[in-house]
Amino acid sequence: MEFDLDEAMAALSRTPAALKAMLNGLPRNWVENNEGPETWSPYDVVGHLIHGERVDWITRAKIILDHGAARPFDPFDRFAQFEESKGKTLGELPDEFAALRERNLIILREMNSSADDFMKTGQHPALGRVTLKELLATWVTHDLDHIAQIARTMAKQYAAEVGPWQAYISILHDRKSQSEQ
Amino acid sequence: MEFDLDEAMAALSRTPAALKAMLNGLPRNWVENNEGPETWSPYDVVGHLIHGERVDWITRAKIILDHGAARPFDPFDRFAQFEESKGKTLGELPDEFAALRERNLIILREMNSSADDFMKTGQHPALGRVTLKELLATWVTHDLDHIAQIARTMAKQYAAEVGPWQAYISILHDRKSQSEQ
Repeated sequence: MEFDLDEAMAALSRTPAALKAMLNGLPRNWVENNEGPETWSPYDVVGHLIHGERVDWITRAKIILDHGAARPFDPFDRFAQFEESKGKTLGELPDEFAALRERNLIILREMNSSADDFMKTGQHPALGRVTLKELLATWVTHDLDHIAQIARTMAKQYAAEVGPWQAYISILHDRKSQSEQ
Repeated sequence: MEFDLDEAMAALSRTPAALKAMLNGLPRNWVENNEGPETWSPYDVVGHLIHGERVDWITRAKIILDHGAARPFDPFDRFAQFEESKGKTLGELPDEFAALRERNLIILREMNSSADDFMKTGQHPALGRVTLKELLATWVTHDLDHIAQIARTMAKQYAAEVGPWQAYISILHDRKSQSEQ
């Protein structure tokens, strides 16, 4: 698929409800367990998504449109949620994420970006030149990556309990990867 | 985590709403594209989950409780959805899945299985002896595997559009695997 703003927004707008459906009211074992040392629980993942809504995606889109590559993006803190989520319950986080996402999609729509705007570039601190279109497409895939991560992290809690079926459930063999954090 | 019926049912009961949140009303490109030859679209995956509700999980649980390993499970047709879903829209499939899942969770609850029941065995056509507990734990992980598959299949539609970010979004590099089909 080629990037299309309406299609991208259709995906981005569904993530909050998907997370709520998967996680709200779920027993703590499911939401607080992770995949092992230095991996994240579903609770941590939602905190990470919230931090992205606060400081990453829309902020970077604005930098591209306002300054282009002359003003490099700030590095993104992939561990900010461990401070930010402190004292918050999982019941609160998906709602917080939903409100931020809704606000950011309104901002994105109001940017009213043209085909030329989508090709404007910014300077990523590690990746170099990137376009607005690439940033927005990445926002979509980043959501989906973390939805899959939550599903995988939950599935792995039953890795031993499935017995011989372990051979058939491929997600139990997928590794966590640094890029998802 | 050790298998616990209430925790397992908490996860199983959330899958229909998660699928609806992710897929209902989504543009066709997202739901009808797959990962390449002999892979499934999100539409195909929901059809597969429907077929599992009809003939697999609860049916096998009943066989274990009624006959034990004396009556082997029927093999599961992993391609049945290509016939069964014909003529149905994606708008219909998640609702159909939700109704079947709700019915099956009622049946599961009414089985009122004891700790001894969970250790009863059945005969899987390929895997050999499996317990009721393993069957039910697998049902949970199978849901999560397919939620992750849908997220991955969608993400891959933008594999080229994310540009240099491809290095950071690990889900774009995950392969489809036969066991997910």
